Amino acid sequence: MMPQFLSTRDAGFEEAFRVLLAQKREDSPDVDAAVAAIIADVRERGDAALVELTERFDRVRLTPETLRISDDEIERLCAQVPEAEREALGLAAERIRAYHARQMPRDESFTDSLGATLGWRWTPVSAAGLYVPGGLAAYPSSVLMNAVPAKVAGVKRLVVTVPTPDGVANPLVLLACRVAGVDEVFRIGGAQAIAALAYGTGAVRPVDKITGPGNAYVAAAKRRVFGKVGIDMIAGPSEILVIADRDNDPDWIALDLLSQAEHDESAQALLVTDDEGFGRAVAEAVGRRLETLPRRAIAGASWRDFGAVVTVRSLDEAAEIADRIAAEHLELLVGDPEALASRISHAGAMFLGPWTPEAIGDYIGGPNHVLPTARTARFSSGLSVMDFLKRTTVSRMTPAALAALGPHAETLAKAERLEAHGMSVRARLDRING
Amino acid sequence: MMPQFLSTRDAGFEEAFRVLLAQKREDSPDVDAAVAAIIADVRERGDAALVELTERFDRVRLTPETLRISDDEIERLCAQVPEAEREALGLAAERIRAYHARQMPRDESFTDSLGATLGWRWTPVSAAGLYVPGGLAAYPSSVLMNAVPAKVAGVKRLVVTVPTPDGVANPLVLLACRVAGVDEVFRIGGAQAIAALAYGTGAVRPVDKITGPGNAYVAAAKRRVFGKVGIDMIAGPSEILVIADRDNDPDWIALDLLSQAEHDESAQALLVTDDEGFGRAVAEAVGRRLETLPRRAIAGASWRDFGAVVTVRSLDEAAEIADRIAAEHLELLVGDPEALASRISHAGAMFLGPWTPEAIGDYIGGPNHVLPTARTARFSSGLSVMDFLKRTTVSRMTPAALAALGPHAETLAKAERLEAHGMSVRARLDRING
Repeated sequence: MMPQFLSTRDAGFEEAFRVLLAQKREDSPDVDAAVAAIIADVRERGDAALVELTERFDRVRLTPETLRISDDEIERLCAQVPEAEREALGLAAERIRAYHARQMPRDESFTDSLGATLGWRWTPVSAAGLYVPGGLAAYPSSVLMNAVPAKVAGVKRLVVTVPTPDGVANPLVLLACRVAGVDEVFRIGGAQAIAALAYGTGAVRPVDKITGPGNAYVAAAKRRVFGKVGIDMIAGPSEILVIADRDNDPDWIALDLLSQAEHDESAQALLVTDDEGFGRAVAEAVGRRLETLPRRAIAGASWRDFGAVVTVRSLDEAAEIADRIAAEHLELLVGDPEALASRISHAGAMFLGPWTPEAIGDYIGGPNHVLPTARTARFSSGLSVMDFLKRTTVSRMTPAALAALGPHAETLAKAERLEAHGMSVRARLDRING
Repeated sequence: MMPQFLSTRDAGFEEAFRVLLAQKREDSPDVDAAVAAIIADVRERGDAALVELTERFDRVRLTPETLRISDDEIERLCAQVPEAEREALGLAAERIRAYHARQMPRDESFTDSLGATLGWRWTPVSAAGLYVPGGLAAYPSSVLMNAVPAKVAGVKRLVVTVPTPDGVANPLVLLACRVAGVDEVFRIGGAQAIAALAYGTGAVRPVDKITGPGNAYVAAAKRRVFGKVGIDMIAGPSEILVIADRDNDPDWIALDLLSQAEHDESAQALLVTDDEGFGRAVAEAVGRRLETLPRRAIAGASWRDFGAVVTVRSLDEAAEIADRIAAEHLELLVGDPEALASRISHAGAMFLGPWTPEAIGDYIGGPNHVLPTARTARFSSGLSVMDFLKRTTVSRMTPAALAALGPHAETLAKAERLEAHGMSVRARLDRING
């Protein structure tokens, strides 16, 4: 099972690389009409709709009182988590907290030469909702990556919704909620959970911002409630780009590529190297490792359909290629990874040197693992405390500052034919001038 | 022509206030199908589509060569701008630049106790497009408010599109482009301009991010190209909330309210005061000033349909009301405006004291005038340099750091059934452990 091999030396490279970049990896089923109906139902009937939809989709019979998972129940389920997982989760939360605490922006206030005082203040979103998928794709690490930054930002009320198909809750997900300081947990999912978070029901009070991953229904629901509440990015399939020279163990690179490929058949794992033989060796190592992998069907399909090995003439060329790909995850396994990193602008997260497999960043490094996909790292960033903060600008003029600036504001207001704007300044200038 | 009067003392206040908050002020015509067709046409036919659509909508015959406004033509048109406007625009640009330069975030890199080096780097978007409306609503101030932050952020290629209906360009808009350092100006507008910026044509190279205001077609086109490129917020009608005590000149407050009302029949001007008589006096002053206003039809309709005077028992109550409204513009004209400001979390921009009419912020204060509307200040912020920057996180582990963290990452990977993730860590741990 071999991926695509490209070389910048080939005459057809530019064309082939453009096709690779433009490749559509995801079929988004059109679920918008179904989602619109679900949202309308939740807005109209509230808890009754949540109870009914949860029975239909998750095969769980609830009442408005049992939509929320009680603290006792969370306690009981958390007690099932093995000690090693408990310890790992605690350490991960602590490291994510320490990293994100450094992201907190500062307020600013300064007085300029005219005496005008200007600045801004950051304040947290009052209430945030975090969607957590249920079932197999329930990732406790994602709970930490969303919830910890929200709490670091100062969000007072943090609500999780997580579906419990057939009534089965994931203890490690609930422990992650507890460790991260989540305030309320509801056992609901799908578009109905997003509707409840955005508009509120009897049991669920509305929030101001919704983050977290989800399937096509959840994504469509987030798009629909955007504006009423804030949302985070809508993430596509995961990607990794590894830039590696020949001084690496092909087996390590193979495993790094497979750790993205195993996420999803639509995931993409790319290798860029300046040594064609090394590229072949990595591809062979991928083949060997694939055989042993529990998720080999998924990882194999991803590698076959979307994987690629690109041979470049130089690391300068590798940097150019990397900027054009703008990968979600970028590993740099070269002699001087810092130097190469400084020549690349577009990537969600960079992992430098042979001892930094991307999986460390997924769990425990400290930086966020919610990152821009599908080349959107050209213009967007991973999740951070900024997603849970907003900035209010503050201005205060003195009579002297207004006397200096007011006439120019009046000139521009007149030029834009906004007379009342000019008059609101002029009335004050007349008082100042006597 | 009187607005709505409310008082928190009234039995029906809560209900009436909820209605006020939920009021829909904007009819967005459904232009999505038309916009989809225009975008498809531009993607397929490029410059030929731009030329044809511009002739149809703007009554201007262009060629692929004249889509761009040449530097000579810009020069010639800029020379028509009167000296007073030139001076005002220059001062505004300088103040906006100085304010936004303070927003530039810092890179971070630190080494933790395990020896792991973590941090992040900010880099600018490579190319940005700024949509500027044409005709009467052509606001040179908006050009500065979008273009200056982009250039402060370090955007290398900044492209403006501005329609020139009947071939008429606005010299002050072009001067604003020049003053702000815009690199290319195209005389195209509507959904076709957004399509050209997002996908590129022969004459227009694509950009990575599009900002700027526009009509329903432009807004729909921005929504459609989002994902392919980044976009800023989709702004709704303008709003102002003034909190004023009786120690103010009712005429000044009236003019401040009217300076929002004159923007648009859907704009909203609200007064909150702790003195009912003062509220009445302001409403009367609005009536008097309206008669003299060139835009009295627009301002009058806005004030009649969406204006309100709310009497509160105390400034504490005013702060609560302000947070529920989450206004785009918030003026605080009370004895201690800083104290009141510190009790309010949700607002796009605050203007403190009697000498800071909001119009100063529209033009020349320094802070941005592109601000969150329609209660979205609960979760979003005004335009800033951050809109033109993105953050890449950076991690580098040492063997010692990986030895300490790796086993926990492996534990969590196994718990999430992502075996290759665990194996990519394990292969390295085995090497470290010998």
